[in-house]
Amino acid sequence: MVVAALALLFVAPAHADTLIDNVNGITLDKDGKLVRFTGLVIDTEGKVKALLDRKDKRPERPDFKQDAKGKTLIPGLIDAHGHVMGLGFSLMTLDLSDTTSLAEAQAAIKKYAADNPETPWIIGRGWNQEKWGLGRFPTAADIDSVVADRPVWLERVDGHAGWANSAAMRTARVTAETKAPEGGRIETANGQPSGVFVDAAANLIAAAVPKPLARDRDRAFLLAQQKLLEQGITTIADMGTTIEDWQSFRRAGDKHALAIRIISYGHDIDNMALIGGPGPTPWLYGDKLRMVGVKLYLDGALGSRGAWLKAPYADAPGQKGLPLLTPAQLRNKMVRASMDKFQVAVHAIGDAANAEALDAIADLNADLPGERRWRIEHAQIVDPADIPRFMQLGVIASMQPIHQPSDRLMAEARLGPERLAGAYAWRSMEKAGVRLAFGSDVPVESANPFPGIAAAISRTDAAGQPFGGWHPEEAVSRETALDGFTRSAAYAGFAEDRIGTLMPGMRADFLILGADPLLASPSEIRQMTPLETWVGGYRYYKKKGD
Amino acid sequence: MVVAALALLFVAPAHADTLIDNVNGITLDKDGKLVRFTGLVIDTEGKVKALLDRKDKRPERPDFKQDAKGKTLIPGLIDAHGHVMGLGFSLMTLDLSDTTSLAEAQAAIKKYAADNPETPWIIGRGWNQEKWGLGRFPTAADIDSVVADRPVWLERVDGHAGWANSAAMRTARVTAETKAPEGGRIETANGQPSGVFVDAAANLIAAAVPKPLARDRDRAFLLAQQKLLEQGITTIADMGTTIEDWQSFRRAGDKHALAIRIISYGHDIDNMALIGGPGPTPWLYGDKLRMVGVKLYLDGALGSRGAWLKAPYADAPGQKGLPLLTPAQLRNKMVRASMDKFQVAVHAIGDAANAEALDAIADLNADLPGERRWRIEHAQIVDPADIPRFMQLGVIASMQPIHQPSDRLMAEARLGPERLAGAYAWRSMEKAGVRLAFGSDVPVESANPFPGIAAAISRTDAAGQPFGGWHPEEAVSRETALDGFTRSAAYAGFAEDRIGTLMPGMRADFLILGADPLLASPSEIRQMTPLETWVGGYRYYKKKGD
Repeated sequence: MVVAALALLFVAPAHADTLIDNVNGITLDKDGKLVRFTGLVIDTEGKVKALLDRKDKRPERPDFKQDAKGKTLIPGLIDAHGHVMGLGFSLMTLDLSDTTSLAEAQAAIKKYAADNPETPWIIGRGWNQEKWGLGRFPTAADIDSVVADRPVWLERVDGHAGWANSAAMRTARVTAETKAPEGGRIETANGQPSGVFVDAAANLIAAAVPKPLARDRDRAFLLAQQKLLEQGITTIADMGTTIEDWQSFRRAGDKHALAIRIISYGHDIDNMALIGGPGPTPWLYGDKLRMVGVKLYLDGALGSRGAWLKAPYADAPGQKGLPLLTPAQLRNKMVRASMDKFQVAVHAIGDAANAEALDAIADLNADLPGERRWRIEHAQIVDPADIPRFMQLGVIASMQPIHQPSDRLMAEARLGPERLAGAYAWRSMEKAGVRLAFGSDVPVESANPFPGIAAAISRTDAAGQPFGGWHPEEAVSRETALDGFTRSAAYAGFAEDRIGTLMPGMRADFLILGADPLLASPSEIRQMTPLETWVGGYRYYKKKGD
Repeated sequence: MVVAALALLFVAPAHADTLIDNVNGITLDKDGKLVRFTGLVIDTEGKVKALLDRKDKRPERPDFKQDAKGKTLIPGLIDAHGHVMGLGFSLMTLDLSDTTSLAEAQAAIKKYAADNPETPWIIGRGWNQEKWGLGRFPTAADIDSVVADRPVWLERVDGHAGWANSAAMRTARVTAETKAPEGGRIETANGQPSGVFVDAAANLIAAAVPKPLARDRDRAFLLAQQKLLEQGITTIADMGTTIEDWQSFRRAGDKHALAIRIISYGHDIDNMALIGGPGPTPWLYGDKLRMVGVKLYLDGALGSRGAWLKAPYADAPGQKGLPLLTPAQLRNKMVRASMDKFQVAVHAIGDAANAEALDAIADLNADLPGERRWRIEHAQIVDPADIPRFMQLGVIASMQPIHQPSDRLMAEARLGPERLAGAYAWRSMEKAGVRLAFGSDVPVESANPFPGIAAAISRTDAAGQPFGGWHPEEAVSRETALDGFTRSAAYAGFAEDRIGTLMPGMRADFLILGADPLLASPSEIRQMTPLETWVGGYRYYKKKGD
C-alpha cells in the first residue's frame, strides 16, 4: 500500500494509529442520523477506529497526528453513477462542454486541430445545441468549414448522439444509402446524412474510429482517478464497464496504483459475465474494486429525443422516443443477471421507460427472492403515479441532481409545462419512501459533486437561477443530499458495510473542507473544493497552496 | 495464503521456518550444475532459505519439521507448453485417448451418451485414427450408428481436426456447398462432407457448440490444477490463453485458490493486448500468475497433415501442409508483440514452418535489441541445416519429449525414412548449443512429466519399444531432461529468478518422490508419481495412503 500511495500525488502514512484532530466532523450513522465529532482515529488497516468528542481522551502516542484547525471533515463522497473511462478519455480529447455557441465550438475545433497536427482523428465531446440556442442540430458542413482534412467525430453532451464532418462520414463509408440500425436515427438534409447520428446510429461512425491502445486507456484511467480525487469523490459506481475498462482498473490495482474505489456494473450481459464470471467478484485490492452487477440501457436521452415517453414530445409531435430493448429482451437480461446474483441497474429516462422498468421488476420480484436492490438509473421523467411503485418494488432511484439545472429549459421544451410534476422529482421520491442515490453521470456532467449538492438543496443553476428554484418543492434537505452522496450511494452498491459513513469499522474515506456544507449557502457549496481527500486512511490529494 | 491452501487438498503450514529433513535432495544450480543436499529450510515467505548438507547444523526450533526418511526431493516440475483449460475441459468431457480401435471409440461414445442423457451436445477429444490402425479418417456415419439423436463433436488428439456426426453437421448447417475457410480442409466422400474437419475448417462445427458458462470454466480450471499437482507439475506455461481463460485464472487467484503457477502466453495478439495491455503483467498472487507473451500459430500438426513441410508428405504426394500466416502477417504480429516487450512463442511443427519462423526472427533481431528469448513451440520436424540457427538467433526450442514415442509410427509414415534426421532432435539441438525447454502439450498428451522424462532419456515408448530406442542418438542425459523440465523451462518463461531450481531465494516448489530419477530405470521413471507436491512452501498434494 505504501507503494500505491507513493505512486500518486501526496500521501500521509497510516501505518499505526492516525489521529485527525480538531475537526468539525460530520457523518451519518448507519441509520442516517447525523453524528458530529471533533477527532477521528484511524487504525493500521485504514479503517475508522473511533470518533472522538471534544471531551474524549485522545490516543497518547498516535503514529501520525494532524491538526485540522477546526476545518470541516465529511465522509468521502460517492458518485453513484459515472463513467470512469469516459471521464478519462474526455480529459484526453477535445472538450466542448463549455462552449455557448456554434461559433465558439467551431473555433475550439479549429484550434484543437492546429494544436494536434499528428492526431489522425479529432475526437471530442460535450456539445449541446440546446445550450447554444441553435434551434437545430449542427451539421457536417459546420465542421467542414474549419476542419476538412481529417475525420472529426464529436459526441453530444449526453452521449446519445454524435456529430461528424464529411471526412468522418467518408472514412466510415456512410452515404445517402446507409440505413440507420434499429434503435438509431440518421439526421438528414436534402436526403443526405447531415452529420448527426442519434443513439444506435452513432456506431456507424464510431466503429470507424481507431481503437485506443491499452496505454492510452491506462493513461485515461489515471487522469480520471486524479480528477475524481481532486473533486472529493472517493468511490464511484462505474455504470457500464467493458472488459477493456476492467483490465485498466485491474492493471492499476496490480501496480498498487488504485486510489479510488470502483463499484463496477458490466456494460450489458456479455461484459458482466466475462468480468464477473459465475457471480459478482469479491472486493479486490483492499475494497478498491468490485464488479457487482450489470448496466442495461432501456432508452436514450431527453436532449436527443431518445428518451422513451408515454406521450409524444411536446416539441416533436408524433415522436415518443424508443425503447432499446423489447419487453422479452429486458426481462431475459434481468433474469440472466439476477440468477447469478448480479445486481441490475436499468437506464430509464423517459416516463414510459421508467414504467416499463418497474413493470419488469414487478414481473420478476416474485420469482427472484433475496435482496435484489434493483436500481433505475436517472429516473428523470417519471409519471407521478409510478413514483410509489419504486418503494413498493424495492427499487433504488439513482439520480443525478446536476441534470436538473442543466436540463431545465430543454426539459420544458421537450415535455411542455404539464408533464413536469414527475421530472427530477427527488423530494417526491423521498416522501414516497424511495431510497435516493446521487451521482453525476460524469462525463455527461462534471464529476464535481458540490454543484450537485447545491442543486439538490436549491433547484437552482450556477447563476442561482431561477430565483427561488425550479419546482422548488422537489428540493431536498442538506442531510438528504449528503445521504444521497454517501450512505445511500454506498447502499445502492452493496457497500454500506464498508463505506459511506465514518462510523467505527468503516474505511476511513473522508474529505477536509474549508466550510461546513450543512451551513454554507448553495452558492458557497457550489464553489467548494476539497482541501484534502483521504481514502482508506491515506491522503491521496492535498490542494496546492493549502 | 492459508485460506488458499485450505481451499485445496492437504496442506502443511509454513508460517515460520520449515525444515524438510533427511532427504535425498537434488537440484540444478543457476548454471545447471547438479547440487545434492539432505535438508531444505523454507522461510516464512515460502522461499528456500538454505540447502543443508549432512554435516550442517539444523535450525534449532523450526515451526514445522518433516522427516522425509531418505526419500528423494526434486524441484517442482515445470511444463513449458500446455493448455490448462484444455486439460480441465478434457477432464469434463469424453476422453477417447485410450481407445485403440474405432469399435472401442464407438462403444465409448455410446456409453457416454447413455450416461449423460441431458447433455445437449456430446463433446470429446483424444481420438487418433493412426493409433486405431484405421488407415482412413473416421466418418460421421461411424458416429451416427451409435448416436444419431444429438450432435457429437470430437476433437482429434492433436487438436488440429474434429470429427462430427450428422446431427452436428446439420446443427452447424454444414452441407456439400460449404466451403472450407483458408487454412482449413473439409474431408469429403462422394462430394459430401464426410465428418472430419481439419484445422481452420473445424471452426465450422465448433462455432455451433454452445459456449461453456463461466462456472463450467472455473470448475475446469480447478480440475486441471488438481490434476497437475497430482502429476508433479508446479508451474505450467499456458500456451494460448484467451481472455476467458485468464478470467478463470484470476478468479482463482482472487479467491486465494490458485495453487499452481501459470506463465501465460496470450492466444494471438488480441488476447495478449487485452490481457496484458501495454506490456507483460507483473507477477500476481505471490508469483502464481503472469502474462508474459503471445502464442502465434504458424502451421498445424503432423497427424492431420497440417504441419507445413519443405517437401510433400511421403504418404500424401502433392500435399505439403500450409502456413497459417503469410510472411507479412507473422512478422507484423511478432513486431507488434515485441515492441511492447511481450515474448513471442511461435508454434512451428513442420520443417518449412520452423525455417520460416527462424527467417522471421532473423529479419527482426537486428531491429529489436534486448533479450527477446524467442521461442519456437514443438520444433518437431527441423531441417538439420536449420538446427544451428536456433542457437545463432537466440531461439529456445520448446519441445515435448512424449510426442516422440506417440508420433513415431505416424512420423515415419508422413516423412519417410530419409527425413527423420531432424525429427524430435533433442540431442542435436543440445549439441548445437540450443536451450531446450520441455513440456507435455497437455491435453494433446497427458500432463504427466515422468513418461516425458523417460522418453527423453530412452527414446522408447510405454512398452519400452523400440528396443534400444528410436534414433537413440537423440536421447539426452538425465540431467538434461531434468533441466528441460525445471531450470530451462523457467528460463524459457523469464522466471529463472524465482523458480526452476531450489537454490536459496527461490520459491520452495518441490516434489517428494519414492525413487531417485537420476538412478531409476526409464520404466521405473515412467511409473513414478509424486508422494507430495509443494508450491511456495505449502504442501498442496499428498498421495493417498502414503
